[in-house]
Amino acid sequence: MDTEVWRPLLHDNGSKIVFLVMDGLGGLPREGDGSTELEAARTPNLDSIAPRSALGLFDPVGPGITPGSGPGHFALFGYDPVENTIGRGMLSAMGLGFDVTPRDLTIRCNFATLDREGRVADRRAGRISTEKNRELCTRIARAMKPMPGVEVFLETEAEHRALLVLRGDDLHEDVAETDPGVTGELPVDPTAKSPSSRRSSEALVRLLAQVREILRDEPQANFILLRGYARFRAYPSMRERYGLRSLAVAGYPMYLGISRLLGMDTHRETGGIAAEFDRVAALIKDFDFAFCHVKKTDSTGEDGNFDAKVHVIEEVDAALPKLLAAKPDVLVVAADHSTPSRLRGHSWHPVPVLLYAATARYDRLARYTERQAAAGSLGRGPLKNVMLLAVAHAGRLKKFGA
Amino acid sequence: MDTEVWRPLLHDNGSKIVFLVMDGLGGLPREGDGSTELEAARTPNLDSIAPRSALGLFDPVGPGITPGSGPGHFALFGYDPVENTIGRGMLSAMGLGFDVTPRDLTIRCNFATLDREGRVADRRAGRISTEKNRELCTRIARAMKPMPGVEVFLETEAEHRALLVLRGDDLHEDVAETDPGVTGELPVDPTAKSPSSRRSSEALVRLLAQVREILRDEPQANFILLRGYARFRAYPSMRERYGLRSLAVAGYPMYLGISRLLGMDTHRETGGIAAEFDRVAALIKDFDFAFCHVKKTDSTGEDGNFDAKVHVIEEVDAALPKLLAAKPDVLVVAADHSTPSRLRGHSWHPVPVLLYAATARYDRLARYTERQAAAGSLGRGPLKNVMLLAVAHAGRLKKFGA
Repeated sequence: MDTEVWRPLLHDNGSKIVFLVMDGLGGLPREGDGSTELEAARTPNLDSIAPRSALGLFDPVGPGITPGSGPGHFALFGYDPVENTIGRGMLSAMGLGFDVTPRDLTIRCNFATLDREGRVADRRAGRISTEKNRELCTRIARAMKPMPGVEVFLETEAEHRALLVLRGDDLHEDVAETDPGVTGELPVDPTAKSPSSRRSSEALVRLLAQVREILRDEPQANFILLRGYARFRAYPSMRERYGLRSLAVAGYPMYLGISRLLGMDTHRETGGIAAEFDRVAALIKDFDFAFCHVKKTDSTGEDGNFDAKVHVIEEVDAALPKLLAAKPDVLVVAADHSTPSRLRGHSWHPVPVLLYAATARYDRLARYTERQAAAGSLGRGPLKNVMLLAVAHAGRLKKFGA
Repeated sequence: MDTEVWRPLLHDNGSKIVFLVMDGLGGLPREGDGSTELEAARTPNLDSIAPRSALGLFDPVGPGITPGSGPGHFALFGYDPVENTIGRGMLSAMGLGFDVTPRDLTIRCNFATLDREGRVADRRAGRISTEKNRELCTRIARAMKPMPGVEVFLETEAEHRALLVLRGDDLHEDVAETDPGVTGELPVDPTAKSPSSRRSSEALVRLLAQVREILRDEPQANFILLRGYARFRAYPSMRERYGLRSLAVAGYPMYLGISRLLGMDTHRETGGIAAEFDRVAALIKDFDFAFCHVKKTDSTGEDGNFDAKVHVIEEVDAALPKLLAAKPDVLVVAADHSTPSRLRGHSWHPVPVLLYAATARYDRLARYTERQAAAGSLGRGPLKNVMLLAVAHAGRLKKFGA
């Protein structure tokens, strides 16, 4: 629905909306009984609210499209995930909790091995250790002499992966990625692909020449490859878009980083699921909207560990009363995408969504599972619709038209 | 679906389509057994056709959007409800059965009380009686001297509400609304917000000065406030759009007025539901399409009277054989929006639609209810799609493409 249609209808009635997001929740049937992770889990608390909820199945980006974490979360918050892209460099910055400013160009950076002819021999530098990565980043940072007017930050992620950030005026992202994508080729030059990116290109050419010198005696990590250029981009905040003072609670920096891009107040809570829920309940009084992120449904799915994923779902369920203590007028239980343990990765399968509110036309379905959600009255649609549905169920939208 | 795709496919096979629209039909579960109004109603006649029908749940404007009566009906007739807006003044004119011409600017007008400083003391003039309103409208009409070339009509609605219509050339709607929206402020001047509206503005400034004089000694209703300016707008007729000679039967002028805007032949029938159905059956032979409007499902919902709404549904059901006597090739039972008695007003919840036709791939669902419709094969989609589905089921659309 066009923003121009509903934005004039917003009004603040003091109601509260909570989104419980289990990352990668959607699953696939296992061998044997054909249960998905959600179906196999014992979830008495979810089972007690499911019959009084409206359910549906939602596509984070579109039918058949497997979303990354960025698009999945943009869709959850009602931002079109195709229009509101987030580059890989920016996602790395979010993951590190790097405080991005509007003058920043963020870049995903891999340590790599060049052979004697300067061709890429290993695009991951033999997956050097994270400690080695840190040592190299420090060495580069000390020795490099960036172009005047440009600040450079190099931050270790893990193994061969790092984040490079250029900060300055007129830095644009339309620069050639230097990773050739295959071994046996020379790194690509970071040439400007449009006139506006000339300055970024110059800064990177200069930097790469220095890095080549600084790392010349390294046996493995003797160069860096650049991709995923992403300039800072301003998104309308949740406050601007929906009039919602918004809170995000998560254990992982990346989700807090995305939330911060949308103007949410972010709180890192590493004490586990129950602690996150307690945190939401403790903080909600100053907010209209709270996003609470559970990571381990995704990571267990990525590990291909069906039973571990089931266990995480059961842990969420056991802690649910703590989240309900926040007394949301609308509780949405959802996911940013599916990560079936059978596929060991993100997938395109739609995600089940549960909407629990006094204003819900509840479906009387027994459980919150993918198959039950397929019969729910929210139907099958784009995930980005769910946010507005939540706002409506919270009584925050007036009538359209006379 | 784009009009250009299907319009060339239309052909007239003499079939007949009937839309039975129960205004505000969609409901919410009541306390206790969790039944909606439709579920609680005894509907043996609807129950007899439901299993041989295709069902679905439809959003009049979009998920989460609560429609007014205008958008709800435009969507029912397959007109995009966001593109085909209708202003409040025009809706008032429709409600009064005022015969709007293409030279008209319609305005929603409230009698109000100004204090001695000319500030708005009561935006509704103490809700004066409808008789008082009539008396004042007559007095103003007799005493006013409109700008040359502009005719002015002032028609009582009810209590403090009236309809003001300017008729003339070059009258546009882009004029400032004079109702400040709060008390203690001066009325806003009806200034032109664009050059095209200068003439409307001049006519209104002159008129308001006269009204102030005419009403100066009134204790309560000593001024009028203007809003909801709506110029006549031409919509393609049902005949032009679908090739359907169309009939509307309703008890309330507003729905006939909207129908007239779409070129339907309108018949007011105030004898109740059965009389409306008889009227459709009697007139259908000269038409291809009939719209039959039941108001009381909405008004009982607005009253918050669950049982009364159930009773209206049962009354419709009992009379249904009279409508089936019209022998429609396609019968659609639908609503323009939900008005759950629990919410005492329009809501965003999708409306159940039943399509009964020999060509329907029927769902074998037991009843026409919101929850059963959620499982229907028409799925969940925009309400504006239903009209074309009806046209297709009536055999009025040829094949697309070779």
